[in-house]
Amino acid sequence: MLTQNQSVRTHQEGLYTFDGFPLRRGEHLGPITIAYDTWGRLNETKDNVILIPPTLTADTLVHDEEDPEGNGVAWWNNIVGPGRPIDTSRYFVICPNALGGCFGSTGPSSLNPHTQKPYGMSFPLVTVHDIVKTQRMLIEHLGIQRLEMVIGGSFGGQQALEWAVAYPELVKKVVVVEAAEKMTALSMAWCEIGRQVVKLDPLWKNGDYSSEEKPSGGLAIARMLALTTYLSEQMLEERFGREITTWNVIPTPSQTSDMGERYEVENYLFYLGGTFSYNFDPNSYLYLSRAMNLYDVSDGYPSLETALSRIKSKMLFIGSRSDLLFPAACVRQLAKKVRQCGADTSYWELDTSLGHDAFLREKEQMQNALWSFM
Amino acid sequence: MLTQNQSVRTHQEGLYTFDGFPLRRGEHLGPITIAYDTWGRLNETKDNVILIPPTLTADTLVHDEEDPEGNGVAWWNNIVGPGRPIDTSRYFVICPNALGGCFGSTGPSSLNPHTQKPYGMSFPLVTVHDIVKTQRMLIEHLGIQRLEMVIGGSFGGQQALEWAVAYPELVKKVVVVEAAEKMTALSMAWCEIGRQVVKLDPLWKNGDYSSEEKPSGGLAIARMLALTTYLSEQMLEERFGREITTWNVIPTPSQTSDMGERYEVENYLFYLGGTFSYNFDPNSYLYLSRAMNLYDVSDGYPSLETALSRIKSKMLFIGSRSDLLFPAACVRQLAKKVRQCGADTSYWELDTSLGHDAFLREKEQMQNALWSFM
Repeated sequence: MLTQNQSVRTHQEGLYTFDGFPLRRGEHLGPITIAYDTWGRLNETKDNVILIPPTLTADTLVHDEEDPEGNGVAWWNNIVGPGRPIDTSRYFVICPNALGGCFGSTGPSSLNPHTQKPYGMSFPLVTVHDIVKTQRMLIEHLGIQRLEMVIGGSFGGQQALEWAVAYPELVKKVVVVEAAEKMTALSMAWCEIGRQVVKLDPLWKNGDYSSEEKPSGGLAIARMLALTTYLSEQMLEERFGREITTWNVIPTPSQTSDMGERYEVENYLFYLGGTFSYNFDPNSYLYLSRAMNLYDVSDGYPSLETALSRIKSKMLFIGSRSDLLFPAACVRQLAKKVRQCGADTSYWELDTSLGHDAFLREKEQMQNALWSFM
Repeated sequence: MLTQNQSVRTHQEGLYTFDGFPLRRGEHLGPITIAYDTWGRLNETKDNVILIPPTLTADTLVHDEEDPEGNGVAWWNNIVGPGRPIDTSRYFVICPNALGGCFGSTGPSSLNPHTQKPYGMSFPLVTVHDIVKTQRMLIEHLGIQRLEMVIGGSFGGQQALEWAVAYPELVKKVVVVEAAEKMTALSMAWCEIGRQVVKLDPLWKNGDYSSEEKPSGGLAIARMLALTTYLSEQMLEERFGREITTWNVIPTPSQTSDMGERYEVENYLFYLGGTFSYNFDPNSYLYLSRAMNLYDVSDGYPSLETALSRIKSKMLFIGSRSDLLFPAACVRQLAKKVRQCGADTSYWELDTSLGHDAFLREKEQMQNALWSFM
């Protein structure tokens, strides 16, 4: 059965363009294009849909039909695919690129129709609410009345929570992984430091860089900092400790010489920072990172309780014991509040030293959490 | 008695210049000047001396006779002064600026006698071992045979530990506050990210900036990142949460506009980053931060145990429960190892949410820890 399904390729890419709408913060943005990928087949009653809102920086490839066991190309193979909790032989799975992103959706690198130049920093501030609204319009466009499930991690978890609060009638189940109703002051500080580094890069030029001369150094350093908040002390200690690298050909983001020996942990971050900055748009990073900070689920409601009391979906929250960016205690407390506000809510904590990255790496625990909920 | 002592001003500044020596990593550096401040009076037998090795970025003012209760000018008034554990009416207290620093000691901003230009990045890599060696030469110069105590926090704690291992006969008691035998991979990563930001600043110019055009933006961002590792999630949450500032006239380090409202936590870091970058030399920051990372007490010995077994001083280790930079678990483990290696060792843990900064802020707990040891 699984073998048969695995051989059926269902992956499709899509683009949906519409007039746009007034953003949460007032400004009108349009036209808006949302890029998305799908797997599986929409059934006749159109009630087998799982939406996976994107993380801050990942593309729309949650599953790789060519390499369903791999972790290289697709970022959520661990839980998406035939025989996995997000079973593509059973569900129609949609992963859209965020509004403001750089993988096909309208963002700061898109052409402003009024000027025929890239928006750059004239792109309006987008919020998680706006991003989720584009996803609601996308599913309406696809003729889908109601979602079986929304599941997202980190920035995607914020969007999943926003789905539950903004469109309570439209989604049956919601899984919020490693996200909370708002970020901590420390996590907001780390994000702002990353954004300051991007904007310090002389090539950033107030956002008006050319695609051939991107401020890659600043973005690479911002990514390095972000990675320290995705990983954990224990994981880095066990994997790298104070090992000195014997392979230090990777340039530093500042294009400067090492001061003495280079440690493996430095080399690892240089490498990941460099590849990220090659693939991602610096302005998109600024806008999406800012949207993540600005998010507060209670925005537009009299109180947090009012917002959470709107939820009608069955809820699962998943925290990671070693998460620095969205500490497990915050996720746990939010789950408790949502339960107190009346929703059918469960909480699962990943027992892991992999930090915030656990939602992408702890295959078995993530699968078990989801099996118990599906 | 105290009142009488308090009215006696004993604060003095000094400079000691000598030929220099071959650094731990081979290169000869000289002449070397070490700037230092002293309080109290050296007794006839010259055995009432307490040395306070400097932190990474503080100056040499551990005590302010004008304002002994204040925290504004002097950084360790909490424990240094008449009637305090480091009693300046009883002890002769010396606080030197580090080799490589920028408060009077020879460092990258000093003139290279061979070129008559500032060393810049031609300054050799200095290590904690070298810094401590300059302190040993300074006390010899002052005619002091043996120290009653060395006490240091953070980078100063590394130096205190190095004193105990490198010169076991010369120091009776050693207090290592919030430091360990080496840094964690995560802390090393944070430091390297900070250094990369300094070097990304277009004004850095490979270290050959003028004093009028310092790479202050990069240094301010590096400081902001360092501050997130000195504070704690709980402290930042309690103090700032998601408060929006009403006073956002402080320029951002990148000299760019805010994206939407500015949070208090951002404003706080912009302010502290800005004042720090105004007062500190960017190249000194690179060299001292690197020295902190490079430090491994076992360097030059067959094993960690061999190094620690050299210790003859009575040892006190102090950790902070919420420390991100030198986690309490690391300090505690080191204390255990030192005890196993034979030294008379105690460990005290500050029960605090103030993170790494606790050694500067937790007055009562720090005093109690020291009273129990003096």
